[in-house]
Amino acid sequence: MDRIPILRMGETLLVTIQVDMQDQTALTLQDDLAGQIAKTGASGVMIDISALEIVDSFVGRMLTSISGIARILSATTVVVGMQPAVAITLVELGLSLEGVRTALNVERGMELLQRAREESSLGH
Amino acid sequence: MDRIPILRMGETLLVTIQVDMQDQTALTLQDDLAGQIAKTGASGVMIDISALEIVDSFVGRMLTSISGIARILSATTVVVGMQPAVAITLVELGLSLEGVRTALNVERGMELLQRAREESSLGH
Repeated sequence: MDRIPILRMGETLLVTIQVDMQDQTALTLQDDLAGQIAKTGASGVMIDISALEIVDSFVGRMLTSISGIARILSATTVVVGMQPAVAITLVELGLSLEGVRTALNVERGMELLQRAREESSLGH
Repeated sequence: MDRIPILRMGETLLVTIQVDMQDQTALTLQDDLAGQIAKTGASGVMIDISALEIVDSFVGRMLTSISGIARILSATTVVVGMQPAVAITLVELGLSLEGVRTALNVERGMELLQRAREESSLGH
């Protein structure tokens, strides 16, 4: 697979990660997302990782990196669908996913992004 | 990969197909979707195939099959993001995707599902 598709839903870009990420796939995803945020003016990025049973430090760094890139481009990133075992592993690895927001599922993630939009429009 | 994740967004179940489907993956997806439709009462299924550069007769049959299963369970299926080359190939292969609705992208697909819901609630 060359690239992970990015779906546009209103002001949100949705990505579902289904495979173990290789370096090149992750870099391509970062580039694509940055390009899509700039092109569409999206205010939110949602990354679903419910298919991942293992998140290693590489994927952890990628999520942090995407979140940072999106923030500079004025978009909020939320990671959804994290399996409980993955959360446990992340803590054991000492990966805090700093700056990355999380939500239980897509619907809660959408609510979080909606609130972020409202706060942003209020000038907070 | 064991299974393709199914994301719930309101009354719609969203699936993005990113890899060439193997027989078992396709069967698992059909089972999972049927189970999720029954469990959630979803009225719509959206399948994004924008990542697919090739759709062979196996995938074509799978899309038709999922659509048929969903219909029996009172849900409408829409396939979105088909690349132009894929559409050409399907026609050349003589695969008409009978009974499968399509839309250009996720947003148009959502509109289509919304209209299907309204028609359904009017008793058509």
